[in-house]
Amino acid sequence: MSGIVVQTIARADAAVIDGLARCGVATVHEAQGRTGLLGSRLRPIYAGARIAGSAVTISAPPGDNWMVHVAIEQLQPGDILVLAPTSPCEDGYFGDLLATSAMARGCRGLIIDAGVRDVRDLTEMGFPVWSKAVFAQGTVKATLGSVNVPIVCAGAAIQPGDVIVADDDGVCVVPFASAAETLGKAEAREAAETAKRERLAAGELGLDIYSMREKLAAMGLKYV
Amino acid sequence: MSGIVVQTIARADAAVIDGLARCGVATVHEAQGRTGLLGSRLRPIYAGARIAGSAVTISAPPGDNWMVHVAIEQLQPGDILVLAPTSPCEDGYFGDLLATSAMARGCRGLIIDAGVRDVRDLTEMGFPVWSKAVFAQGTVKATLGSVNVPIVCAGAAIQPGDVIVADDDGVCVVPFASAAETLGKAEAREAAETAKRERLAAGELGLDIYSMREKLAAMGLKYV
Amino acid sequence: MSGIVVQTIARADAAVIDGLARCGVATVHEAQGRTGLLGSRLRPIYAGARIAGSAVTISAPPGDNWMVHVAIEQLQPGDILVLAPTSPCEDGYFGDLLATSAMARGCRGLIIDAGVRDVRDLTEMGFPVWSKAVFAQGTVKATLGSVNVPIVCAGAAIQPGDVIVADDDGVCVVPFASAAETLGKAEAREAAETAKRERLAAGELGLDIYSMREKLAAMGLKYV
Amino acid sequence: MSGIVVQTIARADAAVIDGLARCGVATVHEAQGRTGLLGSRLRPIYAGARIAGSAVTISAPPGDNWMVHVAIEQLQPGDILVLAPTSPCEDGYFGDLLATSAMARGCRGLIIDAGVRDVRDLTEMGFPVWSKAVFAQGTVKATLGSVNVPIVCAGAAIQPGDVIVADDDGVCVVPFASAAETLGKAEAREAAETAKRERLAAGELGLDIYSMREKLAAMGLKYV
Amino acid sequence: MSGIVVQTIARADAAVIDGLARCGVATVHEAQGRTGLLGSRLRPIYAGARIAGSAVTISAPPGDNWMVHVAIEQLQPGDILVLAPTSPCEDGYFGDLLATSAMARGCRGLIIDAGVRDVRDLTEMGFPVWSKAVFAQGTVKATLGSVNVPIVCAGAAIQPGDVIVADDDGVCVVPFASAAETLGKAEAREAAETAKRERLAAGELGLDIYSMREKLAAMGLKYV
Amino acid sequence: MSGIVVQTIARADAAVIDGLARCGVATVHEAQGRTGLLGSRLRPIYAGARIAGSAVTISAPPGDNWMVHVAIEQLQPGDILVLAPTSPCEDGYFGDLLATSAMARGCRGLIIDAGVRDVRDLTEMGFPVWSKAVFAQGTVKATLGSVNVPIVCAGAAIQPGDVIVADDDGVCVVPFASAAETLGKAEAREAAETAKRERLAAGELGLDIYSMREKLAAMGLKYV
Repeated sequence: MSGIVVQTIARADAAVIDGLARCGVATVHEAQGRTGLLGSRLRPIYAGARIAGSAVTISAPPGDNWMVHVAIEQLQPGDILVLAPTSPCEDGYFGDLLATSAMARGCRGLIIDAGVRDVRDLTEMGFPVWSKAVFAQGTVKATLGSVNVPIVCAGAAIQPGDVIVADDDGVCVVPFASAAETLGKAEAREAAETAKRERLAAGELGLDIYSMREKLAAMGLKYV
Repeated sequence: MSGIVVQTIARADAAVIDGLARCGVATVHEAQGRTGLLGSRLRPIYAGARIAGSAVTISAPPGDNWMVHVAIEQLQPGDILVLAPTSPCEDGYFGDLLATSAMARGCRGLIIDAGVRDVRDLTEMGFPVWSKAVFAQGTVKATLGSVNVPIVCAGAAIQPGDVIVADDDGVCVVPFASAAETLGKAEAREAAETAKRERLAAGELGLDIYSMREKLAAMGLKYV
Repeated sequence: MSGIVVQTIARADAAVIDGLARCGVATVHEAQGRTGLLGSRLRPIYAGARIAGSAVTISAPPGDNWMVHVAIEQLQPGDILVLAPTSPCEDGYFGDLLATSAMARGCRGLIIDAGVRDVRDLTEMGFPVWSKAVFAQGTVKATLGSVNVPIVCAGAAIQPGDVIVADDDGVCVVPFASAAETLGKAEAREAAETAKRERLAAGELGLDIYSMREKLAAMGLKYV
Repeated sequence: MSGIVVQTIARADAAVIDGLARCGVATVHEAQGRTGLLGSRLRPIYAGARIAGSAVTISAPPGDNWMVHVAIEQLQPGDILVLAPTSPCEDGYFGDLLATSAMARGCRGLIIDAGVRDVRDLTEMGFPVWSKAVFAQGTVKATLGSVNVPIVCAGAAIQPGDVIVADDDGVCVVPFASAAETLGKAEAREAAETAKRERLAAGELGLDIYSMREKLAAMGLKYV
Repeated sequence: MSGIVVQTIARADAAVIDGLARCGVATVHEAQGRTGLLGSRLRPIYAGARIAGSAVTISAPPGDNWMVHVAIEQLQPGDILVLAPTSPCEDGYFGDLLATSAMARGCRGLIIDAGVRDVRDLTEMGFPVWSKAVFAQGTVKATLGSVNVPIVCAGAAIQPGDVIVADDDGVCVVPFASAAETLGKAEAREAAETAKRERLAAGELGLDIYSMREKLAAMGLKYV
Repeated sequence: MSGIVVQTIARADAAVIDGLARCGVATVHEAQGRTGLLGSRLRPIYAGARIAGSAVTISAPPGDNWMVHVAIEQLQPGDILVLAPTSPCEDGYFGDLLATSAMARGCRGLIIDAGVRDVRDLTEMGFPVWSKAVFAQGTVKATLGSVNVPIVCAGAAIQPGDVIVADDDGVCVVPFASAAETLGKAEAREAAETAKRERLAAGELGLDIYSMREKLAAMGLKYV
């Protein structure tokens, strides 16, 4: 099942992708029914990045980054590399040279359920990475994996071409087919939140705004 | 034992609380005999915050943030929310809307042995959080918990109204009844440290300042 | 086997040490055949530090920092303290007073497979620490350990006088005897990378630069 | 996306399923190209069980086991329950009462990326469970999940009706569509292993049986 | 706050304690409103033990088992030792010699949020232990702790004299004052479960026994 | 630094090795001054094994078990294989075929800071393994490592030919050069323990046997 590179994948509309980036991970995750989050072990190497893009997926053996080179050739501007090792690993698959190459092809970032290195350089280059570890451990180029096949990354199933949204809260995947619909729900959610934020800032309570008092009483909440 | 909201809690004197904040977690922890620390898994979402306040405690079911809304109504200016889930959980119970509401009531921050989200917004708002995880995972509002009952948070027993001190070193709880006494010891400790810091900066050794050489020799330390 | 302080250790040439700092952890690790990395659980308390120095090693009991005082007397300008507890521990062995003392003797930083505290002060002082935890938990001074004996720190065997290199990617140890040779290889590696970086930035692919296509085909990689 | 119960799922042939159980997890995993393993955090509650069956999948909220009751109605003889919480959780979703009910419907076991309790009773009943934790923590019945939808369990994507194989080595999923083909490869592998086992037991070396010496020499292995 | 040995503690009625042991951890935990569980990291060193007893608590420094000797003198027949280190530690505080001494005084077992050793001997002696780790690492006798003071052990607050219940599912604490009441509820729960177990074994569904179908439909569960 | 097989190593005297096995891990560890323990993450795949033997060490890449085949040729009767991956890994490097081959050469067991599989077969064969994980994940044979070089395994530095002692308490390494001396101390320790065990069983307290009361009082212990 490894040793395959899929060269043609469908991508979502660029405007939809950029809209999802604006909404951010928490809102997009809520908008699609609290699904799609990758595990919290994926953390950004620097604060403040907020990106979205189409997933170019990599299934790689532990400690072997050969397929990253293969995947970079498949990148189109606006894509995001998403790497899942075939068994748990925290080696540093990716550093400043690969980032230079990926950026030259318009790549917006890397999501990796393993390690990354050269993080000072990557930070200076503005190439954001969400990873399980920062670890200088080098890798080999000896065994095949696959590119643009379905993977499970940090507990989430990802198809090539799915939209990846990532910010300081973590990483979320939006299935290709429902990206536009999810954007609509996310933007509606944002609009609703703006009004609530103002009321909350003015001192109104969520208990009243969301009419929770009756239900809480019915459930038996006692004030003493 | 759940489903209870205690509306009246005793709080320590505001000047004592602010004094404890100035001393910081490490000094306060030492001043009370090396007790009161919450586990090191609680980390700040941004560097540099140093706060103290009275604990408004929340015991919440896993993945259910209903009681946060209930707790916010109990906040008084200078309070800190302290949430412990009833079983281990890293869901994002708290985000920018709840922070807006809590800030409107004078809340100084959140200590949570679970997850938090919207951390970029919280950072911009200057609302500090110490949490076990940053995780966008949403929660439900379906099951009761309690507010202002005794809890164990990250391994430390906390009573509502206890003083919470939090900074880059972590989080410490000071029992309500001993807050003033602890402040006195902490300030004495700080004064003593200032003198020692100068001697150490001038090149004197702790071995001499603390008269350790004899005891080390008696214990059998050998220089070779 | 504990209770020993070795007072005379060999150190590498200062120019070699500084050269290794310039190369950084990832490059030095590669230059010595992908060996010498300490575990990824050691993280810097602030971003951006890049240091190298001679290891003054400390083997300390859990929760007991007495030997740190002993070790500080053994420091020479350019040294780095490296502490391994004799069983897993995350207590805060080290804070701003000890850092003041260590800096007064020219110490460049601390590597500790345990906890550190006063991290805000340490950051302001510019004293870098790589640690397993940030934890205010205090320690005692009751049991002997040793200074300048061989230790295993975060999974790596370290001899006193070995060169420690540390930056945002983690920590690497270079054996004293091979420091100059490793620097030579690291600098050669850096020179080679500069040329490759330019080609990659111009859009050339690693697949072509490293002539990978034939080998991948021979291994059976299929493009579909 | 939650709140759905799919009542009709395709199941693999019973003889194929039983054949896969006989081969065991390690062999089946190899037979399908080293894919399909669930994470090693899933451990059996007692040693010696070796089962295979069709997956009846459960996506459940953290700390809420309502959907287990719903799923039990969907069980057919020979099925295995597979539960993934929607966020990380180690609560005890399942105990002896649910096991009694599941066994009454012919269920062969439970795979759960969360906790289980009453393990002494389950052991006496001979109802095997592979779980992330043994934990008595009770759950609520307040929020919907789904039954027989695709899930990711301990890092592996599972479709309802896929074949689950579980033994002391862990848990493996075999896609419904390739179950028969995988069985063929697994049995061929077993046959080949029998011959090799005899040669190895007689003292022949893998280096010779697998003709590794030349390749190792070509790679540069040096005997000193 | 350390260096104290409380010699007189109240204990629950022996019949109540033995009744709680018969009910087991999961039932007792449910009977007191799903509270009182210690963290799942505490695992038994051998399967099949089921005990209850009065807690003799120990607060001990990391890596220092001196207070265990002090605590053993405070044991009465039917007691259980409960040890919490003052900071996280997995050293082996306890082995066969201490178990021999504790058994001579009628101790029923040990709960320890740290390590234990000599587990083969302990198993042969029939002295059950629930611990965070099995680890041969020895400890020192250099620093004071306390005996029979309130502690937090594996996340649960425990008073000396509280009833500890432990079996293969883990460990639960029952406050001294509510032990009899909790036993009553636990036995009622057991009686109710017996009837349900028979109905479930006969093939009735929980969906029907607990009348869940209407509520699930009202919540929106869809069968497809 | 990899790609080397050292064919000649010194081994300790067989009688010394067997004596160390009889003493067991906890006693041997104490006898050599509380040093030499491997991390507690190494657990036996079945209870009751107690072995000692000479270490044949393996340094292997993550997910690559090629060097195990190479190492088996270096085994002599009474040896123990000790494998450390070059970066953290839990793959199943070793199963029943390799165990068959190792047993044919007189190997007594395997210590591996990674995973093992076929544990049911290994248990039936009586081939003991101490590992970090049980995981069916297969490995490749693509990259060189080394055999009989110094390694760090689970935090302990090990030289080829060092004596490994392993039982239910974990794993300990005894340096080749001090094996006989350590055995002497261990046996003395055992003799001393036998007398103490009898006194403790008769009800005498450690407080009296070890004359602790005065020192505790001098340290300030208060009975209340």
